[in-house]
Amino acid sequence: MTGREGGADLRSLGNAPVVVLVRPQLGENIGACARAMGNGGLFELRLVAPRDGWPQEHAWRTASGADRILDEATVHETVAGAVADLHHVFATCPRPRHIIKPVLTARGAAHELRAISARGLRTGLLFGPERAGLDNDDMAQADALVRYPLNPEFMSLNLAQAVIIMAYEWWTAADDTPARDLMTNETEVAPKATLENFLTHLVAELDESGFLRNLPKRPGMVRNIRHLFQRGEVTEQELRTLHGIVTELSLGRRQRGRDETR
Amino acid sequence: MTGREGGADLRSLGNAPVVVLVRPQLGENIGACARAMGNGGLFELRLVAPRDGWPQEHAWRTASGADRILDEATVHETVAGAVADLHHVFATCPRPRHIIKPVLTARGAAHELRAISARGLRTGLLFGPERAGLDNDDMAQADALVRYPLNPEFMSLNLAQAVIIMAYEWWTAADDTPARDLMTNETEVAPKATLENFLTHLVAELDESGFLRNLPKRPGMVRNIRHLFQRGEVTEQELRTLHGIVTELSLGRRQRGRDETR
Repeated sequence: MTGREGGADLRSLGNAPVVVLVRPQLGENIGACARAMGNGGLFELRLVAPRDGWPQEHAWRTASGADRILDEATVHETVAGAVADLHHVFATCPRPRHIIKPVLTARGAAHELRAISARGLRTGLLFGPERAGLDNDDMAQADALVRYPLNPEFMSLNLAQAVIIMAYEWWTAADDTPARDLMTNETEVAPKATLENFLTHLVAELDESGFLRNLPKRPGMVRNIRHLFQRGEVTEQELRTLHGIVTELSLGRRQRGRDETR
Repeated sequence: MTGREGGADLRSLGNAPVVVLVRPQLGENIGACARAMGNGGLFELRLVAPRDGWPQEHAWRTASGADRILDEATVHETVAGAVADLHHVFATCPRPRHIIKPVLTARGAAHELRAISARGLRTGLLFGPERAGLDNDDMAQADALVRYPLNPEFMSLNLAQAVIIMAYEWWTAADDTPARDLMTNETEVAPKATLENFLTHLVAELDESGFLRNLPKRPGMVRNIRHLFQRGEVTEQELRTLHGIVTELSLGRRQRGRDETR
């Protein structure tokens, strides 16, 4: 989806949060943030006092096709100016300061942002500069702080990684993909009767081959084989393959049997 | 926590998944992956046939202190060799191929990894090379594929971003931080009686100042003021500040009153 002439066709999805990068330092980080925003369906980028000015060619190089986000980014002198039209602003902040403030997890923030956006209110996410993070005055502009649950022994996150986690949580908060699915493509999960049909075939061949000749043990052995194949969803296509395997192996045995009696 | 001599003191936390980078191309991406692993408490890195050999100096430069993960990384010729001692292997795969395979979301995978690890079994996560991703033979080594729910219009994720999302989900799956909390530091959320005490003070001063002199409207006005202060948790410290503000504003008014009657 990337690498297209002029970049990907990124459009605003719903009433998504505005991403506000406060005093960002490196152009390539701004580009990497735009890419991360595109991944999570965030589209509107605002820059507060970027250190090296704007536009910066480096940014487009690391955006991986998220050009339109950079093309339409706006520049502001102050945080207050960048958030003036927004109703709720959350500030990402790895290290808590001595302030009284609601603190949200990234997931909690994403769910609140979805709920606020659904009311037609405009939201924003503040991210601080690469080294220092947001200062106390920046945070005083925010309704709440967002703190990612991450390994406290190693919290050092780069800017684009901080953005991708919020973008990912924003996207996921409205996503209903099942946590586990079976990708079957052209085939389907087989119903029990089709599985039973294969097991009947297998047991018949095992009887004929002599594998189940110990009659007292036979019921337990058949159950164990059954347990193995019942463990996961088996598809129609896989059962056809298994039928083929059993038939071919049996045929080989029968042919050897004929050869030996010749 | 970073920048320490020799990097952060990263240790294996629990029975965490092994990260297997398959045919990674750029050393700086390997370093960025190590940093992302450290963020999420993943410690063990295995490299399958890194394009430019191993070790590569570039990697340590982008690891931001996650040196120990790189120092202890092992190199393997094949995926089969890299996963030989593992019991469950999940492969991240942005584009589904025509295969029959369980597909998990990143969150679903993280919860399953936690459950499998808790049984004492060893798990691993496969990540493909930067451009091509995992090939069909790589994926055939895995129990399940992991597909992140992300904007289908813009799925281009760099390697370290793919790693940080899984590392973040792994960490979060065992985290019980409340989705919303109030950071109060030295103070505490005030109980209703303390809030009531302030409201009584405020209303008394408003009565004296004449702000509530319209008696038919007074009950509604008092209720509206009450609604405003009841909306969020107010701390003891904030209520002391509010008492001070009301007292000072009232004092100013009384002094002006005295000055005017002088």
